[in-house]
Amino acid sequence: MASQLKVDFRERAYTLLKEDAEKIFKLIQVQLDHLTMPQCPLYEEVLDTQMFGLSREIDFAVRLGLIDEKEGKEILGSVERSLTELREATLKK
Amino acid sequence: MASQLKVDFRERAYTLLKEDAEKIFKLIQVQLDHLTMPQCPLYEEVLDTQMFGLSREIDFAVRLGLIDEKEGKEILGSVERSLTELREATLKK
Repeated sequence: MASQLKVDFRERAYTLLKEDAEKIFKLIQVQLDHLTMPQCPLYEEVLDTQMFGLSREIDFAVRLGLIDEKEGKEILGSVERSLTELREATLKK
Repeated sequence: MASQLKVDFRERAYTLLKEDAEKIFKLIQVQLDHLTMPQCPLYEEVLDTQMFGLSREIDFAVRLGLIDEKEGKEILGSVERSLTELREATLKK
């Protein structure tokens, strides 16, 4: 029962972090879909702020022992790869 | 046993959040102690960033059900009051 509760917390933490990562993916996707439009100069700032927020959440979950450092790095890494893709696409357009 | 584990997680979350709030208090205190010195223009920015990070951690802990919204607001509120005190002291100097 106790370990079940721990699993519940771990799963809930993982789900929340994935949801927050998903929100950033959607912001990136919106930008990728509108590369021919004038870029909003605040977009980069918003994405940076959201990334920082996500990294703090992940760090907190790791310190709580709810997710492994490796899992946390994977979530953050996947969003970072998407951001790199957006920056490259923006430079090419 | 299960509820004990929940208490442990709640306590650990609360302790971590208080520790992070404490770090911001210390940054504020350093500024208050050096009001007669030239202010570093990045200080406000650093404090804002740290406050945003803390608010994201608190929000995450609330969503996880580890701390109450009221507890979270109290932690953030106490740091905000300290920040207001710093701003007022800076204006008066």
